[in-house]
Amino acid sequence: MHRYRSHTCAELTRAHVGQTVRLAGWVHRVRDHGGVLFIDLRDHYGITQILADADSPVFGEVEKVRAEWCIRIDGEVKARDDELINPKIPTGEIEVYIRDIEVLGPAAELPLQVFGDHEYPEETRLRYRYLDLRREGLKRNILLRSNVIRDLRERMWQAGFTEYQTPIITASSPEGARDFLVPSRLHRGKFYALPQAPQQFKQLIMVAGYDRYFQIAPCFRDEDPRADRSPTDFYQLDMEMSFVTQEDVFAAIQPVLQASFERFGGGRKVDSAWPRIRYADAMKWYGTDKPDLRCPIKMADVSEHFRGSGFAIFARLLEQEGTEIRAIPAQGGGSRAFCDRMNAFAQKEGLPGMGYIFWREKDGELEAAGPIARNIGPERTEAIRRQLGLGKGDAAFFLGGKPEAFERVAAKARVEIGRELGHFEEDRFAFAWIVDFPMYEKDPETGKIDFSHNPFSMPQGGLEALEGDPLEVIGQQYDLACNGYELVSGAIRNHDREIMFRAFEIAGYTREEVERRFPGLAAAFRYGPPPHGGCAVGIDRMVMLLADEINIREVIMFPMNQRAEDLMMGAPSEPTNEQLRELGIRIIREED
Amino acid sequence: MHRYRSHTCAELTRAHVGQTVRLAGWVHRVRDHGGVLFIDLRDHYGITQILADADSPVFGEVEKVRAEWCIRIDGEVKARDDELINPKIPTGEIEVYIRDIEVLGPAAELPLQVFGDHEYPEETRLRYRYLDLRREGLKRNILLRSNVIRDLRERMWQAGFTEYQTPIITASSPEGARDFLVPSRLHRGKFYALPQAPQQFKQLIMVAGYDRYFQIAPCFRDEDPRADRSPTDFYQLDMEMSFVTQEDVFAAIQPVLQASFERFGGGRKVDSAWPRIRYADAMKWYGTDKPDLRCPIKMADVSEHFRGSGFAIFARLLEQEGTEIRAIPAQGGGSRAFCDRMNAFAQKEGLPGMGYIFWREKDGELEAAGPIARNIGPERTEAIRRQLGLGKGDAAFFLGGKPEAFERVAAKARVEIGRELGHFEEDRFAFAWIVDFPMYEKDPETGKIDFSHNPFSMPQGGLEALEGDPLEVIGQQYDLACNGYELVSGAIRNHDREIMFRAFEIAGYTREEVERRFPGLAAAFRYGPPPHGGCAVGIDRMVMLLADEINIREVIMFPMNQRAEDLMMGAPSEPTNEQLRELGIRIIREED
Repeated sequence: MHRYRSHTCAELTRAHVGQTVRLAGWVHRVRDHGGVLFIDLRDHYGITQILADADSPVFGEVEKVRAEWCIRIDGEVKARDDELINPKIPTGEIEVYIRDIEVLGPAAELPLQVFGDHEYPEETRLRYRYLDLRREGLKRNILLRSNVIRDLRERMWQAGFTEYQTPIITASSPEGARDFLVPSRLHRGKFYALPQAPQQFKQLIMVAGYDRYFQIAPCFRDEDPRADRSPTDFYQLDMEMSFVTQEDVFAAIQPVLQASFERFGGGRKVDSAWPRIRYADAMKWYGTDKPDLRCPIKMADVSEHFRGSGFAIFARLLEQEGTEIRAIPAQGGGSRAFCDRMNAFAQKEGLPGMGYIFWREKDGELEAAGPIARNIGPERTEAIRRQLGLGKGDAAFFLGGKPEAFERVAAKARVEIGRELGHFEEDRFAFAWIVDFPMYEKDPETGKIDFSHNPFSMPQGGLEALEGDPLEVIGQQYDLACNGYELVSGAIRNHDREIMFRAFEIAGYTREEVERRFPGLAAAFRYGPPPHGGCAVGIDRMVMLLADEINIREVIMFPMNQRAEDLMMGAPSEPTNEQLRELGIRIIREED
Repeated sequence: MHRYRSHTCAELTRAHVGQTVRLAGWVHRVRDHGGVLFIDLRDHYGITQILADADSPVFGEVEKVRAEWCIRIDGEVKARDDELINPKIPTGEIEVYIRDIEVLGPAAELPLQVFGDHEYPEETRLRYRYLDLRREGLKRNILLRSNVIRDLRERMWQAGFTEYQTPIITASSPEGARDFLVPSRLHRGKFYALPQAPQQFKQLIMVAGYDRYFQIAPCFRDEDPRADRSPTDFYQLDMEMSFVTQEDVFAAIQPVLQASFERFGGGRKVDSAWPRIRYADAMKWYGTDKPDLRCPIKMADVSEHFRGSGFAIFARLLEQEGTEIRAIPAQGGGSRAFCDRMNAFAQKEGLPGMGYIFWREKDGELEAAGPIARNIGPERTEAIRRQLGLGKGDAAFFLGGKPEAFERVAAKARVEIGRELGHFEEDRFAFAWIVDFPMYEKDPETGKIDFSHNPFSMPQGGLEALEGDPLEVIGQQYDLACNGYELVSGAIRNHDREIMFRAFEIAGYTREEVERRFPGLAAAFRYGPPPHGGCAVGIDRMVMLLADEINIREVIMFPMNQRAEDLMMGAPSEPTNEQLRELGIRIIREED
């Protein structure tokens, strides 16, 4: 017989009755039924009930074992009495009488119980991650993650993509977020960086002529932690294609993601129509470029109805440049109680409040109620109702000012209103391509023009488009929104050196700076660069969505805590003096 | 028609004759046949011949294109004349008459030609890697690598393993090689490290009960560069299993590797018998723990025949402790010319030389020739011949001294002799498990006892074995040798805290130090650790073997150079002052 086991803990059935078997696993639970000890023995595959009574030659040994001890037992498979059969588990028809036992790994008192559903502070769970990982919920998430990644990989291969590994120790690339640096020992005073994404490498792969690249790629950004973001490393399904337009990228990635969501979505509805929404429209309709389309409500600009109206707050607001009044229509929200609740929601989110109108029946007539309706009068109120397509029993909420000041809250209120009024389909994955992102944005404080997204995107209209107002330039950039998250981001790249230099010049970089900061790409584009584009899918986020988790640490096997520490491994830690000496660096103490 | 192409450059056949098509790709070669321009247009998939004559409306444009320009053409597919058919390529029966052309990406003068087989200095090849990657040989290697990794992955899944990602930004682990450190911004003065291997994490995964783990894992060691080693990151097929013995690990990994070598070995013979050779025997027979078994020659200890003999050099050597005389038998090497050549080989490798005896026929009798035979006399000579199983026309070479002083050269000489005498089977993959490695070794200078391999291995005989002479302790450790390389390394792990502490104590670590240096594992082993073991396969090395390359940079898409620099991306580079300030570190200049 094998040294540790003849079967797994998920394998034995009625067919094995009478056989002597060997099992190994963890003591999931012990029950003492007066002289008979029942143990649920658990391994990776399942649970088998084993037991010892006074007849067992090792009863005394069995009595000693405790929860989460790792043991090996030999025993005889017996059928359970009919009334004791457990139809919920594959091994529910049998039990194993223990004849021999070996403690493979005893356990000290547990800081975290595996059996049951106690809740523990996250620090405890992270410090004893190996115990937490034994628990059912986390284990299900981690296995889901592994299966999703396998599935994505296979679908990409089947779609004609090839996976290539790009370097992890590479050059600092001063776009976007902060780099993690790695001091070089051989080149004192110089540093490598971990890649924020394989962006430049995948573009170089296109220049090298490899046509369809993908990679399940670790990415590194030294960012301040957030619930849906890992503070150190995270994974992307990164892909790039040559000789393609935006539509080709969409056509390549949609079937991969859609099939994966269908397979792992646990029966939730997966939309097959993925609308394309212009960035400007997304902002106007949903107040965000990652709308949650499970809520169908679309906001609308209703400024015209307030301009010069008797509602002085809005009328005065509209005299300032760049302001508008946005309405959130709320079908079925036509009660003062509901309107007040939503108003309070907006206040809790930091706005002065949301004005509203609601429509009710009075004396067989439609009546518009609320202070705004009174202030602007029946004509304007009716024009608003018609624009929004509302009627009796409905309401509309209004936010005014500069869009950037109210849109964050408007976006939340839109979803909250949809949820409250039952317009929100929870068990659904709703996708939309957000397209036509602006290339540039203006820093509200410094007034400086900078790239709003990815500096490597091709502006729509090419070089000519760059001659006008930079804030009007639209990039060939796109995101995929899913249920309120940015799941994918991508672009058709700028492969033309002249357009690239001009695009960077607008953002304040000289030609020399571009050559110095991106030496690989800048040089490569001299040698027959093909048109190319691609995207990257946030894998951790995708698994979060599939697992219905809102904390990224629930879908990562060994995550850092929110302070970017690994309490289990003790990272980060103090280096030795020898390490620092070899690297030629010194720590600046606070007092220095 | 699609914006860039209707077909790839490998797709058009006689069936498309008469159609108007659109192709995109690179100008591989231009030939001017007096008024007719022939261009080999290349993309990732193949080559199509396109041409323009004076009838073409864009002849003037076509005339301008040069090698490696990226272009798009429209044209008409025509059948080639029978005598111009090229049966070597799929598109060899047709050619495309260019009717329209668009330059997608022009190329400047090339620092490296893609067409042809010019050789270039490695620095040029690395700096312009995207051009080098367009060349046939390197492209073949890179695609081989991708396919091998995909294949390994699928086979591991099919064998019941699950792939989990372990952290890349983690804690420094002071075993083995030097860590790459990453300064923490949030925790000033502290550093993360990149994992030398996911060793501790995979053991924690076993403690977490996940049973069969694998990962195509990036590993990081700050080591001085070598031809067969990357100076920064490299990849392993890392795997671990619970409730297993050494034989289970072998039985799990052999089918995976063997099938992969059979599939990608280009028809070379793949041994299916993988002998197990004890470490001590491997050193004695082959002078190395990674023998190239394509050469069947086994060395033997012939000290007895020289002890007190008339060959004074060896006789005196043997009076010192720890010395021996090793013989390399050489069937068919029985000529003075051959023996002198091998002697010269040993001298070139830094030894004073190799003594030899060779056997020839003289007057119908077997005669042993050479100075050693004369010195030790016929009886001893004959005893040596019988021990080595040699006869007429054969030779034996002798190396004397401390094995560690001559074994490196002996190992090389064994292979050289095998090659020269035709005993070496080039087109073959020969594997052997090297088992029973010693747990400890003594530093020859300091006399300090240290781990010889992996400190986490289980000593054979457990705690008791650790009570005797440490240098006699054998670990449950193993390597797989393939054609002279260490392809796999692994062990059954030490999952028993008490044995672990004792094992480390022998190497000079206190219990507290172990707890401090390996906090994750040391704590985890308190909570029901299962017996477990596994191994890691060097993927870069495996692809080198399959691609028949001896330089690791030939199988990595974007490798560092031998000085650990990426000339293309400009890594490593000077950090900005702001980066250093944020990280709280300062560079120590040489003059400091």
